[in-house]
Amino acid sequence: MPDRPYEDVKIVGHLIDSGILSHAMDVIVALDAGFETLRFDMGRTNDDPSVAVLRVSAADQPHLEQVLAGIQEFGAVWVRVEHPEMDLAVVVNLTERTAETRPMSDVRRGDSIVIGHDGVRVRPLERPRNAQVFEFMNSSVSSEKPKAQVVAEIARMLRDVRAAGKDVLAVVGPAVVHTGAAPHLARLVELGYISVLFGGNAIAVHDIESALYGTSLGIMLSEGRPVVGGHEHHLRAINTIRGYGSIAAAVKQGVITKGLMHTLVTTKTPYVLAGSIRDDGPLPEVITDTQEAQAAMRPYCQQAGACIILSTMLHAIATGNMLPASCTTVCVDINPAVVTKLSDRGSFQTIGVVTDVGLFLEQLVKELED
Amino acid sequence: MPDRPYEDVKIVGHLIDSGILSHAMDVIVALDAGFETLRFDMGRTNDDPSVAVLRVSAADQPHLEQVLAGIQEFGAVWVRVEHPEMDLAVVVNLTERTAETRPMSDVRRGDSIVIGHDGVRVRPLERPRNAQVFEFMNSSVSSEKPKAQVVAEIARMLRDVRAAGKDVLAVVGPAVVHTGAAPHLARLVELGYISVLFGGNAIAVHDIESALYGTSLGIMLSEGRPVVGGHEHHLRAINTIRGYGSIAAAVKQGVITKGLMHTLVTTKTPYVLAGSIRDDGPLPEVITDTQEAQAAMRPYCQQAGACIILSTMLHAIATGNMLPASCTTVCVDINPAVVTKLSDRGSFQTIGVVTDVGLFLEQLVKELED
Amino acid sequence: MPDRPYEDVKIVGHLIDSGILSHAMDVIVALDAGFETLRFDMGRTNDDPSVAVLRVSAADQPHLEQVLAGIQEFGAVWVRVEHPEMDLAVVVNLTERTAETRPMSDVRRGDSIVIGHDGVRVRPLERPRNAQVFEFMNSSVSSEKPKAQVVAEIARMLRDVRAAGKDVLAVVGPAVVHTGAAPHLARLVELGYISVLFGGNAIAVHDIESALYGTSLGIMLSEGRPVVGGHEHHLRAINTIRGYGSIAAAVKQGVITKGLMHTLVTTKTPYVLAGSIRDDGPLPEVITDTQEAQAAMRPYCQQAGACIILSTMLHAIATGNMLPASCTTVCVDINPAVVTKLSDRGSFQTIGVVTDVGLFLEQLVKELED
Amino acid sequence: MPDRPYEDVKIVGHLIDSGILSHAMDVIVALDAGFETLRFDMGRTNDDPSVAVLRVSAADQPHLEQVLAGIQEFGAVWVRVEHPEMDLAVVVNLTERTAETRPMSDVRRGDSIVIGHDGVRVRPLERPRNAQVFEFMNSSVSSEKPKAQVVAEIARMLRDVRAAGKDVLAVVGPAVVHTGAAPHLARLVELGYISVLFGGNAIAVHDIESALYGTSLGIMLSEGRPVVGGHEHHLRAINTIRGYGSIAAAVKQGVITKGLMHTLVTTKTPYVLAGSIRDDGPLPEVITDTQEAQAAMRPYCQQAGACIILSTMLHAIATGNMLPASCTTVCVDINPAVVTKLSDRGSFQTIGVVTDVGLFLEQLVKELED
Repeated sequence: MPDRPYEDVKIVGHLIDSGILSHAMDVIVALDAGFETLRFDMGRTNDDPSVAVLRVSAADQPHLEQVLAGIQEFGAVWVRVEHPEMDLAVVVNLTERTAETRPMSDVRRGDSIVIGHDGVRVRPLERPRNAQVFEFMNSSVSSEKPKAQVVAEIARMLRDVRAAGKDVLAVVGPAVVHTGAAPHLARLVELGYISVLFGGNAIAVHDIESALYGTSLGIMLSEGRPVVGGHEHHLRAINTIRGYGSIAAAVKQGVITKGLMHTLVTTKTPYVLAGSIRDDGPLPEVITDTQEAQAAMRPYCQQAGACIILSTMLHAIATGNMLPASCTTVCVDINPAVVTKLSDRGSFQTIGVVTDVGLFLEQLVKELED
Repeated sequence: MPDRPYEDVKIVGHLIDSGILSHAMDVIVALDAGFETLRFDMGRTNDDPSVAVLRVSAADQPHLEQVLAGIQEFGAVWVRVEHPEMDLAVVVNLTERTAETRPMSDVRRGDSIVIGHDGVRVRPLERPRNAQVFEFMNSSVSSEKPKAQVVAEIARMLRDVRAAGKDVLAVVGPAVVHTGAAPHLARLVELGYISVLFGGNAIAVHDIESALYGTSLGIMLSEGRPVVGGHEHHLRAINTIRGYGSIAAAVKQGVITKGLMHTLVTTKTPYVLAGSIRDDGPLPEVITDTQEAQAAMRPYCQQAGACIILSTMLHAIATGNMLPASCTTVCVDINPAVVTKLSDRGSFQTIGVVTDVGLFLEQLVKELED
Repeated sequence: MPDRPYEDVKIVGHLIDSGILSHAMDVIVALDAGFETLRFDMGRTNDDPSVAVLRVSAADQPHLEQVLAGIQEFGAVWVRVEHPEMDLAVVVNLTERTAETRPMSDVRRGDSIVIGHDGVRVRPLERPRNAQVFEFMNSSVSSEKPKAQVVAEIARMLRDVRAAGKDVLAVVGPAVVHTGAAPHLARLVELGYISVLFGGNAIAVHDIESALYGTSLGIMLSEGRPVVGGHEHHLRAINTIRGYGSIAAAVKQGVITKGLMHTLVTTKTPYVLAGSIRDDGPLPEVITDTQEAQAAMRPYCQQAGACIILSTMLHAIATGNMLPASCTTVCVDINPAVVTKLSDRGSFQTIGVVTDVGLFLEQLVKELED
Repeated sequence: MPDRPYEDVKIVGHLIDSGILSHAMDVIVALDAGFETLRFDMGRTNDDPSVAVLRVSAADQPHLEQVLAGIQEFGAVWVRVEHPEMDLAVVVNLTERTAETRPMSDVRRGDSIVIGHDGVRVRPLERPRNAQVFEFMNSSVSSEKPKAQVVAEIARMLRDVRAAGKDVLAVVGPAVVHTGAAPHLARLVELGYISVLFGGNAIAVHDIESALYGTSLGIMLSEGRPVVGGHEHHLRAINTIRGYGSIAAAVKQGVITKGLMHTLVTTKTPYVLAGSIRDDGPLPEVITDTQEAQAAMRPYCQQAGACIILSTMLHAIATGNMLPASCTTVCVDINPAVVTKLSDRGSFQTIGVVTDVGLFLEQLVKELED
């Protein structure tokens, strides 16, 4: 193919075990282009990077450019982009030579936005060699894993993150209250393992319902059976807080004396309650505008050292969208579909655990208190 | 028990087969109260109502009142409450002698709100005798049903509702686009079987992505395989619509020439796109405030003759909360947990169908076109 | 309808709250027959039975007989049928005036088998008034229940059954070993809470694999990660036992020194290992003929006071088929479909628990040891 | 590391894109051994194999042997092993210089069985470059795929296999009958797309029940509702066949005149009905001994060109265990857990389709008849 346009591309890194080279070749072939390996210097030891030079050829110049864009593995590094987040625009500050991400809806006239692929280099996370545990836990999202070991592993990770002074983000659905696990989560907050909590209206409502009436959606938590008239409790809980103006005010007035929300308020642990169209009420602290809620969540995501997601799909995906790929994320759900959905979004760091969140949190607290 | 307080309660209706009497007795016993049957006149034929008089006795007066509130089966009917909807307050207009429901967050100082149970009579829906089909389809939410018959039954129901001049509400998740079923749903709109559509940002984004690029989340729908660079398409689709200001404008300008959203615009079928914290973009028509979105959805719910829910959990539950119990609702999802969750909310009229939404819609259109 | 054939049917029992009368009426209407209520004496108090006399009329005599067969609520009680089990024939011993069930494949020429409905009376189990807990736990098969209470309830039930000197049957799948819960189950055996164990080849193989190598399907249980070469372990475990001739022999020779199977052997707790076409090996004790396996399981089923089913679908359904409806059955699985499938078979006594079997057994042991 | 034992290992193939080299390195590192790359000649074009020589070093000789066994990528090829199947022994015929697999329970005294890894070379299947479709359909086992394309792809594959004169094995669960899809499957048999059918007692029983009574487990298939007395039908169906001695005899006598089993008999398509402990009856043709059933299934597995698995877990896994990795396998189930479980067993050729088997088969027939 003497007259086909081509370009020689150099790729450096742990090319083989990280899958980078294999991926580049897949893309080239998928686009009906060709390649020839001009050079391949494999690192002699486990730690040395390898170097490959591929001659990528295509049918014509636009085709070649499409291929080069597809592999996205070269170009000058202008500057490091701050706050990497999927599906956001990159805004360049030409005078200060900085770049950062920005949500589409926050882009303003006059911003210098990167369009196309020129001058952009994407550095995929390299899969760590010692990743066997994570890999094992992810390989198939399965409930059939030795659970005591999984809990111990996560406890160790939380200890490490706390020791490194980094934040742990907890993203929580109402099943935590329904299964009677809210006191265990509150205990994690007290122990300093949770730095910030994300949830919706429901988790807060049912936690307050349990503080006021002992029930969650009308089920008496101490007995596991429905209470006559209990279906009113969540509405009365909402009304009570609306009457005081905020959860914090109700805590201060001595109306709410226990529970997860009480613990968050008294330990001054920040929380974001994001609204959804399912909400009753909602509680005064709930941010009903979804764009505002995202804006409130984003800074916590950007600085999180780890994230633990407990029985929620909506908030899990919303948070997963905003977390940098480098943030270790644990997703606990009894429904394997939720765990798979989150893992599919693609960080090596996501650990899926298919288990009962109620029993899981009880064991995790025990492990961390030992 | 001569000195215990009691009250004689009269209950009228199809007491036995509807389960009303059995339910009342359960509640009395659950609350540790007692009853004696003073009278029971059973209807002689299938159509006659029965009459029961129970003497309900309790430990003391507050206990008795709690029991009477629990069974909620008597009292004067002041007026019919307009727009019955779960978890809403009842506002009474004393001069006009009317009553209607109102969301908690829309209650204003000075409103006359019903508190407690005095003077309230709840009339549960009676289970129709000929309900065997529905009952069968619900009994266990199962995928192992003869599907051709289920589709035929739903087609007949949609024909009846359309013939009666009532509205059909479609509540739709993005899987409808991903599975390639959007053209079938668009066909139902054209045939006049859908009066209004509820969805989120995603269903509209991916439908527009497929109209512009042939892909849904980057998967080429005509071939079922990913396109290199396809992960950008949904962002470009959002940007395109944002550039034109609205979906309707993009249709008018000839930019969007096909797809579900195009059909909704050209047939002047109304739609509500409700925001969530997962949204990219979002599209300009998306109502980002969740309370405003509920307010936009509510009038359509109140007048719906039937509702068909397709592969969505968030929008399904939000809509289910607002639909009156008398609205026939069909919930189609490949995940039995979604169908169970909706059925648990409790109308006899909810028909759960565990199936593949893509193949289901194709068959439904064929059935309705014959 | 003066010339239609009819028959007056008397029904006695807790007709309303047990649903018996409602069910009979449903059947009559479903078959296009009619009824008139000649008499209805409702029990005055909660404990008194009610009496109804219905005049059931039909189009002609065969139709009437079909209807009467359908409601199956009358006729003389010849004798009590021993060992009630679904889908079995009833064999009558005319000289001894006894009757018992027999599997279809065990019926022999000359047996007096009941055919048709004449002279048969079916007495459905009446739903107990105090059944609220069970009802709650079953109503919707949900993972969102307060788990600590569910565990406590089951522990109480097991204590009661043991105190009454009745047998507890455990039906177990291999996930119990994979999740690291086998030692907890072995502890229940030691504590006397399990009288007999049903399982397949896999549960025994992986338990022995873990005793010999510390792994289950090649996953090191103490670390939760795969061992290189571990995929051979289950085959070597099978081979080892085949070499010794039986699990019991390997225990006696000191080859197997720990684990669930070891505990069963040393405590002389009986077990039945039933074969399936998935089996590797199989182990010598596995009954490879499925009819013989049923015959081995049946006597244990007939005398079980309670049954606890842990993470198995095949063995659960096989056992459920053989258990009398009066046997309290607990089905624990992380997959709600399994729990639903078993509950659908229809005893009031089946309690479904959607949870992680590994964590569940750990908590159950703790509860029973306190 | 001058005094550590080492061995130089040469590996040839599409090392990078197939993942072979990466896998070998993972194993070496996981076992705490080391390697140095002495040579790496990368194929210049897409089709050329690459050659790597690694110097693998270990702590001592046993450690080194463990590592070499772990990577299993060298050694002399004695002979090709006939009928590759997982978890079977390899029997060597030293005089004829042949080798073949044999089930553990069929090994006899005097057989020359391969033990250990010496002299064994395992050649993993290389992932084909053009595998994008399969890969896409597998990547995440998801129901959200464009279904019309998936059906078309499978139809094309079935046409190719039939054109190549190879056998297609269908493995079938009773949901095929319950969903009303048995006539579609029978049509595939008539069209010559199914060469042999595997199932259990239930698929045959319910198909015969539908031929005799129009019902499946008592549900009238033409109306989708239960028939009073219908729960007896499956027992009467079994009894009918037992009376005639076999399904084939009942077909010949004109008792069974339609349905899937009728089609199998009249088209002389072989079938294997394997027993399980859940079975009622069973039918006379059911092989109740599970080892005999495996032996009956194995020859069909060894010569299958493709395998299509429809709504069964037990038979799917049993068959999957016996199929060579090179056999293209399609697994259709509405439950993603079944599809995942089969895919995890690990052939590149397994295509998982999460959909409704009833609607799927209807579409597949339509596609193949066009």
